[in-house]
Amino acid sequence: MPNAIVPGSFDPITNGHLDIIERAAHLFDHVTVAVAINSTKAPLFALEERVEMTREVCCNLSNVTVETFEGLLVEYAVRRGATAIVKGLRAVSDFEYELQMALMNRRLYPDVETVFMMTGAEYSYLSSSIVKEIARLGGSVEGLVPDSVRQRLRQKVGREQG
Amino acid sequence: MPNAIVPGSFDPITNGHLDIIERAAHLFDHVTVAVAINSTKAPLFALEERVEMTREVCCNLSNVTVETFEGLLVEYAVRRGATAIVKGLRAVSDFEYELQMALMNRRLYPDVETVFMMTGAEYSYLSSSIVKEIARLGGSVEGLVPDSVRQRLRQKVGREQG
Amino acid sequence: MPNAIVPGSFDPITNGHLDIIERAAHLFDHVTVAVAINSTKAPLFALEERVEMTREVCCNLSNVTVETFEGLLVEYAVRRGATAIVKGLRAVSDFEYELQMALMNRRLYPDVETVFMMTGAEYSYLSSSIVKEIARLGGSVEGLVPDSVRQRLRQKVGREQG
Amino acid sequence: MPNAIVPGSFDPITNGHLDIIERAAHLFDHVTVAVAINSTKAPLFALEERVEMTREVCCNLSNVTVETFEGLLVEYAVRRGATAIVKGLRAVSDFEYELQMALMNRRLYPDVETVFMMTGAEYSYLSSSIVKEIARLGGSVEGLVPDSVRQRLRQKVGREQG
Amino acid sequence: MPNAIVPGSFDPITNGHLDIIERAAHLFDHVTVAVAINSTKAPLFALEERVEMTREVCCNLSNVTVETFEGLLVEYAVRRGATAIVKGLRAVSDFEYELQMALMNRRLYPDVETVFMMTGAEYSYLSSSIVKEIARLGGSVEGLVPDSVRQRLRQKVGREQG
Amino acid sequence: MPNAIVPGSFDPITNGHLDIIERAAHLFDHVTVAVAINSTKAPLFALEERVEMTREVCCNLSNVTVETFEGLLVEYAVRRGATAIVKGLRAVSDFEYELQMALMNRRLYPDVETVFMMTGAEYSYLSSSIVKEIARLGGSVEGLVPDSVRQRLRQKVGREQG
Repeated sequence: MPNAIVPGSFDPITNGHLDIIERAAHLFDHVTVAVAINSTKAPLFALEERVEMTREVCCNLSNVTVETFEGLLVEYAVRRGATAIVKGLRAVSDFEYELQMALMNRRLYPDVETVFMMTGAEYSYLSSSIVKEIARLGGSVEGLVPDSVRQRLRQKVGREQG
Repeated sequence: MPNAIVPGSFDPITNGHLDIIERAAHLFDHVTVAVAINSTKAPLFALEERVEMTREVCCNLSNVTVETFEGLLVEYAVRRGATAIVKGLRAVSDFEYELQMALMNRRLYPDVETVFMMTGAEYSYLSSSIVKEIARLGGSVEGLVPDSVRQRLRQKVGREQG
Repeated sequence: MPNAIVPGSFDPITNGHLDIIERAAHLFDHVTVAVAINSTKAPLFALEERVEMTREVCCNLSNVTVETFEGLLVEYAVRRGATAIVKGLRAVSDFEYELQMALMNRRLYPDVETVFMMTGAEYSYLSSSIVKEIARLGGSVEGLVPDSVRQRLRQKVGREQG
Repeated sequence: MPNAIVPGSFDPITNGHLDIIERAAHLFDHVTVAVAINSTKAPLFALEERVEMTREVCCNLSNVTVETFEGLLVEYAVRRGATAIVKGLRAVSDFEYELQMALMNRRLYPDVETVFMMTGAEYSYLSSSIVKEIARLGGSVEGLVPDSVRQRLRQKVGREQG
Repeated sequence: MPNAIVPGSFDPITNGHLDIIERAAHLFDHVTVAVAINSTKAPLFALEERVEMTREVCCNLSNVTVETFEGLLVEYAVRRGATAIVKGLRAVSDFEYELQMALMNRRLYPDVETVFMMTGAEYSYLSSSIVKEIARLGGSVEGLVPDSVRQRLRQKVGREQG
Repeated sequence: MPNAIVPGSFDPITNGHLDIIERAAHLFDHVTVAVAINSTKAPLFALEERVEMTREVCCNLSNVTVETFEGLLVEYAVRRGATAIVKGLRAVSDFEYELQMALMNRRLYPDVETVFMMTGAEYSYLSSSIVKEIARLGGSVEGLVPDSVRQRLRQKVGREQG
């Protein structure tokens, strides 16, 4: 009965993240979306907002739970009884970093597997950073993030500008 | 109850392949190791030998079956009722090719996921090709392939040279 | 009045090729699609077939001509009075090879520029080779190549199998 | 009558930038060098200095204009009536980032093409960052930037150190 | 009588660094480990601590000296009479940056060679940054850094947390 | 007294190869250029021709010897008492393959180091294959190979065409 964790900052959750979460939910018995507390980069959205947005867009996925975590991801996975950490891959630069983390995690806890799934081609150029940059510069993020996230993003960037 | 397929030529099976098969067997209910019939490259070992060697080294893994397949891999996965195709990744060049194949397979059958697992660091430089080249040039492949494969490899390369 | 050349084997032309040709036709006054005679790899389609298919799918593009070429591409570009060679890029492995060719061509004839355009994300996993492999293994290539090419591909692969 | 935009921070303009601007001016009817106002990184040179230096070194190119822009690059391109955004590529790491941006820009405004040109081999290791680092550490940047930029760089770094 | 320099921040020295230093000491008559003073990133360990830790772990290597340097690395190499700068390579992203630096250094001083050595496979995922991150999050860094470094790291991170 | 081996097919030797050989000769006491007998690809030049051309262009380098080798490169290095195998790196695709071979060679004989040197930027797009292709298609290879090689190449390709 394998359980998987999909970790991230989700600042905010994009359609690319959602694609990976849905695929993971299709493959594993249970999926925990783990929103990172210890973000070294100052996030645009507070932890509560990131969790709330993520919960909203995952609410139709019956075997998906949204939680927060801090500390070492692989130790969190062990505590949660997860057998797999799921990461989405888009490009070569993702791959090298994720390979490094996966090998390190395996060294720390050999029983937790890191599995990679490919982000859909239509999301290959999508990241939270680029979404935030477009929103800040006044461009449209329609189709890049779920609608509920788009509204929050407009308010957030509006509040910042106003 | 997700079933996974680990496809390959296995000409011959290496310790790197075995590492991926064992990890997949740990994660999925059932794993089918699928030995490709349609190898465009002339294999060193005949199909029967490749299946036999693979069965020998997987015999202790109770939820692993070894089969042959031909035609499109993703259609074979559908026929077998598999929900996932598992591939091992070692390097950037692997990654780009496998990303291309994964996106194409998703386009053909969206319900079959391709999941990637990282080969252990100690096998990152290991491939069937390099094992065969070392054996042909008289080097030692101890620790690179299972012992039973090493003996067959010696006989095969010996037969060829004699 | 810049003229551009889009070179290739077009064995067969795919929707990814067509995407690049259309973009180039949008940018340059005239575009010559140059079908390579000297293909070192044995092509599936004869030169005449490759030219015919390419002409069919480009017939609505008023500033596009289809020709054949042999010898050094950059010398052909000079003879044709082209100022640019246009290549599509999909992935890192494309990029490195194309960078090498572009630098070499610049060394031979500094006045002919190589310009790169990005293949659409939905075609990032598409190549003539993968299309031929899918067709040979009996899979559907709908949406990967123009309809007229799909019919010829079926006949060609059918003739080979029959 | 295609017009192109060559965007950048130009902090300061290097011989590699100049190489790309000259090649673009050879290919397009008109080229607008667009100096970014919204640099998230604190620039060494103020906007006015960056524009001035860029104008000086481009003054012999009759079809090149230097402007500033802020906001989304692709919207600026639409406002300016440009059909192409030109970017120089040096290395694989450039390529992945630029591919991501090009695909995103195409999604926002499909009529603006991103075209890539290869930086000359002799400039493949050149960037504004490395030029500034060498100047700060007291090394010679002769041949890496135009002479007028070299003098300004010496003054700027001298002022900072003094 | 070739002398080599192994430069770095060594914040802190890892088993991967030590692997490269030992290999270099095996190949060159004398090796100078050069600890960078001008670190743009705020280091976790002060310069004196970094030098001390590095000296401790290199004390058994008779032809290795530990020094500090500031300014341009290649000019330091010239002043020290070194004929080679040795860098460890782990991954593609290392490679591109190091290639750029090596070409720039050759341009500045053609007589100083940059030579690259491969970090052992078991250290391919190891860096000072990842070691510090694991230590900060309370994970074990045993086997990743020399024992003496591990103790200092615990004290340092402990002091920070306490 | 470290001795190094620079292995290759040298079919034919290019200015890029010569650049690496000269740099290695500057760094090591003695350099053996090792021309591979077991080329799996059918070479354009016979072994004797490849050795002869290589000897001609290396005749001014007093500490360089040209030899042939067959079998495993790393075992040849051990027999010759070499402490290092020197390889030139040009691009990411080189890097991955060479990393794999270096790690495998280290596993077989840990005492033989593989060291990498960067090919000069002006040779980054140069390979024996591209030189042969240009020559076959009637282009000029001046500046890409030594003059003596250029003449042999013309004769060889002339003989083939005549």
